[in-house]
Amino acid sequence: MKFVIQRDQLMDSVQNVMKAISSRTTIPILTGMKLEATSEGIKLTGSDSDISIESFIPAEEDGIVYAEDIEPGSIVLQAKYFPDIVRKLPQNTVEITSDESRNVTIRSGNAEFHLNGQDPEEYPQLPQLHTEDSFELPIDLLKNLIRQTVFAVSTSETRPILTGVHVKMDEGSLEFIATDSHRLASRKVPLDQPEGKSLPAVVIPGKSLTELNKILADSDDKIEISVTDNQVLFRTKHLYFLSRLLDGNYPETSRLIPEQSKTVVKIDAKDLLQSVDRASLLAKENRNNVVRLVTKESNHLEITGNSPEVGNVVEEVTANDVDGEDLKISFSAKYMMDALKAVDYDQVKVEFTGAMRPFLIRPVDDDQILQLILPVRTY
Amino acid sequence: MKFVIQRDQLMDSVQNVMKAISSRTTIPILTGMKLEATSEGIKLTGSDSDISIESFIPAEEDGIVYAEDIEPGSIVLQAKYFPDIVRKLPQNTVEITSDESRNVTIRSGNAEFHLNGQDPEEYPQLPQLHTEDSFELPIDLLKNLIRQTVFAVSTSETRPILTGVHVKMDEGSLEFIATDSHRLASRKVPLDQPEGKSLPAVVIPGKSLTELNKILADSDDKIEISVTDNQVLFRTKHLYFLSRLLDGNYPETSRLIPEQSKTVVKIDAKDLLQSVDRASLLAKENRNNVVRLVTKESNHLEITGNSPEVGNVVEEVTANDVDGEDLKISFSAKYMMDALKAVDYDQVKVEFTGAMRPFLIRPVDDDQILQLILPVRTY
Repeated sequence: MKFVIQRDQLMDSVQNVMKAISSRTTIPILTGMKLEATSEGIKLTGSDSDISIESFIPAEEDGIVYAEDIEPGSIVLQAKYFPDIVRKLPQNTVEITSDESRNVTIRSGNAEFHLNGQDPEEYPQLPQLHTEDSFELPIDLLKNLIRQTVFAVSTSETRPILTGVHVKMDEGSLEFIATDSHRLASRKVPLDQPEGKSLPAVVIPGKSLTELNKILADSDDKIEISVTDNQVLFRTKHLYFLSRLLDGNYPETSRLIPEQSKTVVKIDAKDLLQSVDRASLLAKENRNNVVRLVTKESNHLEITGNSPEVGNVVEEVTANDVDGEDLKISFSAKYMMDALKAVDYDQVKVEFTGAMRPFLIRPVDDDQILQLILPVRTY
Repeated sequence: MKFVIQRDQLMDSVQNVMKAISSRTTIPILTGMKLEATSEGIKLTGSDSDISIESFIPAEEDGIVYAEDIEPGSIVLQAKYFPDIVRKLPQNTVEITSDESRNVTIRSGNAEFHLNGQDPEEYPQLPQLHTEDSFELPIDLLKNLIRQTVFAVSTSETRPILTGVHVKMDEGSLEFIATDSHRLASRKVPLDQPEGKSLPAVVIPGKSLTELNKILADSDDKIEISVTDNQVLFRTKHLYFLSRLLDGNYPETSRLIPEQSKTVVKIDAKDLLQSVDRASLLAKENRNNVVRLVTKESNHLEITGNSPEVGNVVEEVTANDVDGEDLKISFSAKYMMDALKAVDYDQVKVEFTGAMRPFLIRPVDDDQILQLILPVRTY
């Protein structure tokens, strides 16, 4: 195998593929990165068996040459050293070769690295997904769907299914839902699909979506998503991101969402966020950083945090509108701040149904984003 | 006690003083920060008994009012919460008050924090240094002296005196020396002093100098340094930084420095640094990251790193001049990189006296900076 490649392109691909490689895998060959050269270009592969990532660098694209002098072949390199080596190469032109004994040479400027490669035949074949169940959406939109929901997945393995994001597609809409049973985040978007086409609902591990979100650069290019029974594939022009799916039944969440409300607050999201943030400073010693919200006269809210040992904080925030019953309610400051950041609108509507019932946070003018939080009982 | 102050000024001072406060102190009151208001301004104090820091915010300076409505008094606040509270206050104007029961109120905009203060009488008095042994130098220069030497102090407590920087002042010059017995860093500067005046040599804990360097902003303003038998005080206009000194005899280091050399290499510091950095990538599994340097024909150096399990790296670097005997020598890549960064000149001179003897790195045209490294025996 031989090729000459641009360091910066190689570095981008190496960094993406590294996101799938774990040094703690039980399959030794998976601590390595597979390099494969063909006349079309260079393909890098990494996998921890939950997530597999392939990144492709075309030999030439749009008249720009990224890789040349290609002699086809493949090799597996220890991934622990490879990114640092590439990053610190002295020149932008890099030659990588391997011989029959799997001795790999990386040459750039006057520097020459000799690495012991591993047998590419030992590297597991990535499954090729054969499915008709695929759809496309803009990368930007996918990144938003992930960002607005994935933080709410459970981090506990007691109910493994809740560590994933529930992805449903039917009747021309796509919905992401995550919950850790104390809060829920969901986002729905309309989707142009051929009539009558729907996909099986799947549960994608939160970790996979978080890594995918890091790799994808903001762009309005399309990404193709394909699902089978046990895997999901995200594919862009040069990236192939495969994740296993979580097995099991995702709980029915729609019945959690209250259909009516008793107190509705319309407020500037940033005002509420900053006030809750301040109140949480003196609520840290409580379980879950609990803060308290009390409705007051003339559209005022009182937000308080209390830490008996240290002191307390009280703040009055002016809402745009407070409608309905008076209310005293306590909730996790962290959940409230996560939700307000995810909503990503200037003006929000918070809908309460009494101090013991879940409440909703959503944009004033957009019902596709919904955040739900369970209050905390205080005595 | 009462005062109204600008949040940004208060934040700067709080951050500086926090550098002296440790949550792991055995003296409970020292987990707090002392606030003291007088008609002149507001003084904040923090201490972990090794380092004490006072930061002063004048009520008014150069016609700008920083603090007003001052009612003199003092209080001690739990330092764990105070910086976050100040940082997140909603407005730039902050009112801080405390009553006879040491209830402290911090008010800004509509936010109000109530904190339990502690008795300022319990806070230890900082020693007032009475000494004639003081001198001044520009802050920039002090920061350089620290930066170019402090990294070489020992991190091991087996010889506690080596965890400090040896500071000597005599015959119109000031010298900082640090060594961990494997390498040595020194920097000397001329000092204008009244004739016949010299100071006792002292050993300042490396940690104190590191913290001081973080607090001091780049500036050509002067800083006054005063020493007594067991303490050193650094004083600028509004900062008072007191550190204990290390007790014991600092080893005589001048005899470590070879007086003649057998091989002298003149080279671009960046070329050598980057090449050693690359070689070290495959030397990580060795003790101390050892790399090898071999002189070659026509002013070339060969730098190599070797990690039997992974591979090796070889690079030829062109020096400006290689004079004297041929040489093969091994050394810690980390020590070499630290030294080259500290020298801070484009062109350096490396003076070797054989493969088993310490070697020197210094700027080609400046003999006030000196870095010494002991080679590593390889077999």
